[in-house]
Amino acid sequence: MVYITRRERFCAAHKLYNEEWTEDENLSIFGKCSNPNWHGHNYELYVTVKGVPDKQTGFVMNLSVLSKLIEEKILSKIDHKNLNLDVPFLSNIIPSTENLTITIWNELEKEIEKMGGKLHCIKLFETENNFAEYFGK
Amino acid sequence: MVYITRRERFCAAHKLYNEEWTEDENLSIFGKCSNPNWHGHNYELYVTVKGVPDKQTGFVMNLSVLSKLIEEKILSKIDHKNLNLDVPFLSNIIPSTENLTITIWNELEKEIEKMGGKLHCIKLFETENNFAEYFGK
Amino acid sequence: MVYITRRERFCAAHKLYNEEWTEDENLSIFGKCSNPNWHGHNYELYVTVKGVPDKQTGFVMNLSVLSKLIEEKILSKIDHKNLNLDVPFLSNIIPSTENLTITIWNELEKEIEKMGGKLHCIKLFETENNFAEYFGK
Amino acid sequence: MVYITRRERFCAAHKLYNEEWTEDENLSIFGKCSNPNWHGHNYELYVTVKGVPDKQTGFVMNLSVLSKLIEEKILSKIDHKNLNLDVPFLSNIIPSTENLTITIWNELEKEIEKMGGKLHCIKLFETENNFAEYFGK
Amino acid sequence: MVYITRRERFCAAHKLYNEEWTEDENLSIFGKCSNPNWHGHNYELYVTVKGVPDKQTGFVMNLSVLSKLIEEKILSKIDHKNLNLDVPFLSNIIPSTENLTITIWNELEKEIEKMGGKLHCIKLFETENNFAEYFGK
Amino acid sequence: MVYITRRERFCAAHKLYNEEWTEDENLSIFGKCSNPNWHGHNYELYVTVKGVPDKQTGFVMNLSVLSKLIEEKILSKIDHKNLNLDVPFLSNIIPSTENLTITIWNELEKEIEKMGGKLHCIKLFETENNFAEYFGK
Repeated sequence: MVYITRRERFCAAHKLYNEEWTEDENLSIFGKCSNPNWHGHNYELYVTVKGVPDKQTGFVMNLSVLSKLIEEKILSKIDHKNLNLDVPFLSNIIPSTENLTITIWNELEKEIEKMGGKLHCIKLFETENNFAEYFGK
Repeated sequence: MVYITRRERFCAAHKLYNEEWTEDENLSIFGKCSNPNWHGHNYELYVTVKGVPDKQTGFVMNLSVLSKLIEEKILSKIDHKNLNLDVPFLSNIIPSTENLTITIWNELEKEIEKMGGKLHCIKLFETENNFAEYFGK
Repeated sequence: MVYITRRERFCAAHKLYNEEWTEDENLSIFGKCSNPNWHGHNYELYVTVKGVPDKQTGFVMNLSVLSKLIEEKILSKIDHKNLNLDVPFLSNIIPSTENLTITIWNELEKEIEKMGGKLHCIKLFETENNFAEYFGK
Repeated sequence: MVYITRRERFCAAHKLYNEEWTEDENLSIFGKCSNPNWHGHNYELYVTVKGVPDKQTGFVMNLSVLSKLIEEKILSKIDHKNLNLDVPFLSNIIPSTENLTITIWNELEKEIEKMGGKLHCIKLFETENNFAEYFGK
Repeated sequence: MVYITRRERFCAAHKLYNEEWTEDENLSIFGKCSNPNWHGHNYELYVTVKGVPDKQTGFVMNLSVLSKLIEEKILSKIDHKNLNLDVPFLSNIIPSTENLTITIWNELEKEIEKMGGKLHCIKLFETENNFAEYFGK
Repeated sequence: MVYITRRERFCAAHKLYNEEWTEDENLSIFGKCSNPNWHGHNYELYVTVKGVPDKQTGFVMNLSVLSKLIEEKILSKIDHKNLNLDVPFLSNIIPSTENLTITIWNELEKEIEKMGGKLHCIKLFETENNFAEYFGK
């Protein structure tokens, strides 16, 4: 079993904001991340797939195929977007780094399976100091 | 003459959008950077000051003083903000990386002079692939 | 279960030196790391906490709270210090990267539990080429 | 149990090419990586060893010893080489990142055991976007 | 005057080898970089253009246009290629990092001028430890 | 004229401390950098040499020769040392990043000239946030 990882990047706006709370309550919990007029990040996304290398190609999965899949299913929908307003698969979800890893896992797991791969981990950097990882359970 | 540099970071939302143009015209020039609902970045700001090291301290300028100045004059006003909406010194300015370097220079130059320093360069990374530099003229 | 990680940094002096050995014996085992007059590093510390994201906040743990905890319990005691001389929780411990990860785990585990988190991993870079990880057992 | 990691780097040429296929078939599967005249990479290799820190040294394994072992067994044979033509332990193996991690594991596992260490992981970056990991099974 | 920079990357094989010398002479001057069977690198290319930001766009030059130009004139010809064998504009040139910066400058200068830009610097990293810069004279 | 740069790294202990001042005065100016028991850093040193590439080699200067020179004249004297106590060419000099760049320039300039090179810049990172540059005047 070998684990291969593809890094992709996207830039997006968001705010951490619970609509059921007042602006002050949001400020007290989320700090400056609750700024009503948004802020944003350069996200780094690491998608890890596991499997046995194919004898003909040496590949667990063709990373060029994986890259196109991430582009089609994820990046085309969230790059240069507003994560609170523009992304169907994030509607009604607070776009914390944690929730983003779970949501991206859910969007990719079956698509990767169709290509013969097995998703192992979604890792997402919000900044160089903060990141989250999700392994599907 | 020695050049010293302090790196600081901030996260902000923006869009590249000329209000005198239609949405389609903006899209044709600015591409996905014109997304009406914003996007954002982790910016890296490098502030370079030049001078002769002081004999008592070995410092051109105390970088801890410089860091506090950048925090007070720049970061407190743009970190976790919307560069098109929230920042007084950016009003009516398209927040391209180029314009940001000029504006930050203008905010810092005299403040650094008051502390005995001489500003040499503002360098700003928008992403790991794109950055701008301004030397004051 | 999602894993979130906060990176913090500190600068410290140390030497690798067993007081029960002669200077030559130390040199033969620890090489230039045994320099009696010390050397030092820019350390990078990654603290990983695991849990289920809260429904109200989307957070496994507020990383701003985690950052303050690391500052209070670890950084305030080891940043710009001598790891062999200045740090109570390192007394009588050879400050190898391995021992630092175990010691930092022991200082943080219960404090993070008090805040409702579950510590998963301490990862510490001594240089860009050398790092250690500890998972609590 | 603590996990320690040593990073080493090497530069090498390779192509992804199945000799049983035509040039066109190779191009359709491997894309530009099949260029008959080779291309190459700056590889980053991370070797992770696990164990209990020694009481006298604080070390799981002396990283200076590990570094010399990697130099002798791996780097001296693949740095500034052609992975398809020059490396005995890669003969008849398609030099994908996946296969490289397995092959390097096989070269190092017993040598590290002789030094009293237990190999845990081989991680290899081909570019900043692509990497593979192998844990020995 | 503001300076903007676009980073691009490519992977290529090369050797440092003077065809007028024996293999031994090449080895004595170029060391392991003269390996007859090639080696290779992940190159990082930084292209800097200078100018006054446009009032309508805030741009010195549209970096998306610059990126496409670099792709068309440089990357499509050298990415995943052999710098000694495959690249018309490098024929009869020893592909040292120095020579690559001069050659890339010559390929790009007029093309950038046609787009209204003024090339300022070509900077090329061969590894994280080695790079060259050329300013056109 | 092409500019080539070699990066080298070293780890060292130091403190910022003016012996003519009291400990409190040092603390008020140098902050935690004045810790009497030292602290330390992973320094990154960039040495830039300028010249015209040689027709036979494509080199401004052989970077392998430059690397050995930096090792012999600088690294062997400051790596894993105490910059206040152990280094002859730093005696009676406050080891600020600024003073280190000037001192390293003075140690290297003539040595590089003997090898046919022309030193252009010494750049030194103390941390990822702080660096200094010196161009010889």
